[in-house]
Amino acid sequence: MIFLRYVVRSYSHNRSRKSGPLCIFRFNASVFHGKGMPWFGMDIGGTLTKCAYFETKSANPDLHHQETELIKIVKKYFKENPRKGVAGQADIRLQMDNVSIGGRTGSVHFIRFPTSLMDDFFAIAKKHQLGKFISALGATGGGAYKFEERFATELNIKFAKFDEMDTLLNGMRLVVKMNRPKEVYYWYNPHPDEQNCNPPQEKDHLSRKEYDLNDPYPFVLVNIGSGVSILAVYGPHNYKRISGSSLGGGTFLGLCCLLTGCTTFEEAIALAAKGDHRKVDKLVRDIYGGDYKKFGLPGDLVASSFGNMNLPDHRLNISKFDLARATLVTITNNIGNIALMWAVNLKISRVVFVGNFLRVNPISAKLLGHAMSFWSRGTLEALFLEHEVRCLLLHLLKHYIIGSS
Amino acid sequence: MIFLRYVVRSYSHNRSRKSGPLCIFRFNASVFHGKGMPWFGMDIGGTLTKCAYFETKSANPDLHHQETELIKIVKKYFKENPRKGVAGQADIRLQMDNVSIGGRTGSVHFIRFPTSLMDDFFAIAKKHQLGKFISALGATGGGAYKFEERFATELNIKFAKFDEMDTLLNGMRLVVKMNRPKEVYYWYNPHPDEQNCNPPQEKDHLSRKEYDLNDPYPFVLVNIGSGVSILAVYGPHNYKRISGSSLGGGTFLGLCCLLTGCTTFEEAIALAAKGDHRKVDKLVRDIYGGDYKKFGLPGDLVASSFGNMNLPDHRLNISKFDLARATLVTITNNIGNIALMWAVNLKISRVVFVGNFLRVNPISAKLLGHAMSFWSRGTLEALFLEHEVRCLLLHLLKHYIIGSS
Repeated sequence: MIFLRYVVRSYSHNRSRKSGPLCIFRFNASVFHGKGMPWFGMDIGGTLTKCAYFETKSANPDLHHQETELIKIVKKYFKENPRKGVAGQADIRLQMDNVSIGGRTGSVHFIRFPTSLMDDFFAIAKKHQLGKFISALGATGGGAYKFEERFATELNIKFAKFDEMDTLLNGMRLVVKMNRPKEVYYWYNPHPDEQNCNPPQEKDHLSRKEYDLNDPYPFVLVNIGSGVSILAVYGPHNYKRISGSSLGGGTFLGLCCLLTGCTTFEEAIALAAKGDHRKVDKLVRDIYGGDYKKFGLPGDLVASSFGNMNLPDHRLNISKFDLARATLVTITNNIGNIALMWAVNLKISRVVFVGNFLRVNPISAKLLGHAMSFWSRGTLEALFLEHEVRCLLLHLLKHYIIGSS
Repeated sequence: MIFLRYVVRSYSHNRSRKSGPLCIFRFNASVFHGKGMPWFGMDIGGTLTKCAYFETKSANPDLHHQETELIKIVKKYFKENPRKGVAGQADIRLQMDNVSIGGRTGSVHFIRFPTSLMDDFFAIAKKHQLGKFISALGATGGGAYKFEERFATELNIKFAKFDEMDTLLNGMRLVVKMNRPKEVYYWYNPHPDEQNCNPPQEKDHLSRKEYDLNDPYPFVLVNIGSGVSILAVYGPHNYKRISGSSLGGGTFLGLCCLLTGCTTFEEAIALAAKGDHRKVDKLVRDIYGGDYKKFGLPGDLVASSFGNMNLPDHRLNISKFDLARATLVTITNNIGNIALMWAVNLKISRVVFVGNFLRVNPISAKLLGHAMSFWSRGTLEALFLEHEVRCLLLHLLKHYIIGSS
């Protein structure tokens, strides 16, 4: 039974901390007491586990003590984690302060850690008896299925499981509403005549523009995590998974680790930022000597990703930066290609790209934006969200609290 | 003006050499004298240059001398080429003996060499004055544009250029007609209940079956060379390029060279044959702990290609065989995925796969065959050609002789 009503107020990422608290959910206090604090949501993906929790000073001294203990454990986990480079970390940029939930004010924190370190998480959670403080948490992602039993038996924590795609779509609506019209943006090309050229190496001429997603339906949603899921979304509760690809963020990172010796996504992106994929790939002009005019394929277009790497002379002439860039361009273009096909075939003009692959990765976002516009001759719009990482977790918290009350 | 008529007779690869000669083209002798012998056709692709030439004993002693000289040069080229592993070589398996062309009997030879060695080809051709023996040749592929001027100025050989896709499609018709009904085949699954499982690692349970492509239209043609071109073919002269991908045979070979240290396509395929991609990729069950039932994704499905390679422990546990296999499976599945999408969206039930990527590569052919059937629930047919490498070159020879006479 749902006792709650929730109110979403306009929220700007840069709003003054002096303004009143942001009220995401307002609800019956009994729910609050039933759940214990802090509320905890986990999206356990193939590569990354993303968490959100609400930290607040409770008016009730007992509750406050419990909450503080738990927060200590959570923080300790990230400090104790010994593996450099793959340790979990707080997404401080995403933190939402001065938020009011159920009449209390506090902060929503966002944390991520590699799912491969789940064993470490369990060890620390057991050591600090996490199950004493929270008995349940909202969970989604593949790991909500994979780890459910372990959380129950080893930590005595139950999962309130939520479907990943439902949660993502509802979370998108929540975040767009909170931050409209600033939340959604696209990459604008101020020189449309350059549309006639292949997406160039440097996309710095593109500028970011707000896009008011007032009436979003229908749109194609491309969720790029370890792999890729593509949905056709026709209404708030009307969508279907139309396609997917196993070539996603996990492929980019895995190949980069093998090819360059890097160890983290951030490192791989930083390498890619300094590289030139054209030394690695075979371009249309490498094969045709120029454009392939019959089919309108420009000379700068990649004809064969990594297509020069069978040649010893070319292999000697490349750096790890070039390899990382080529990997990023290969994966990004392939995703763009598949998304474009579906959008064209379904006659849907808006494609929204989300997922952790796009985090700290403006190269891919710009490439997708430019390529979608180029190949559709300007008829398709590639859209991105400012706070898309928050989407799923915020809704997960909300759904957890409301849906299971 | 065309003086010629040509006759295509049924031809079987294994037909007895004692049977009468195969007559591919019958034509006016004046054309023969105008062209010089042997007729030479080149398909200059991004990675490989494929050649066909007709070797025969001429009744005319002068002509015979010229032809013999040229054949010597051609053979010398392949012997002189010093680079081990990337040297050109005759496709002896494809050789067509006892063929009658214009009243003369001889053999059609097929040769390939890496396009990257074109400089070596020019050096030897100049040394042996190739231009003294032939003044023109039929050419297609991107290199027909890229190298046209060099052939003219350095070797005094003119190109009769033919569009690659026209030539390929006409060549397919020619070869299918010559060898019907044996030419076209598919991979048959004798255990259709296994359709419910993800395409397994080993596809040895699949058996090859003839497919009588009597009325071929419409079909989707997927041409996998260095990159991939996808055509929708509605009739003999009615087709359009609907899509493509830069992730093709060149990507497989390039990545394998980087990841395993191999140097040739054959070596890369041999490595892949011994590997297990499941050690490299992240599977649905690695993320979900089993199937992802909501979307009908089986646990064995690859969720993220190379998705385990960001983890040091996993990297220690793999071999170059596994890496080659994962690369092959990644590229093959991506091509199958894109081809499937187009076939489904265009409501075309037959997909014909051709291109040098499929040469000595039954793993990919079986994977494509099984995956197309699996994902379409048996409604799509993945078809292959027995002598598809011949298609384009045979038609190129034919078109060159007839079309420019």
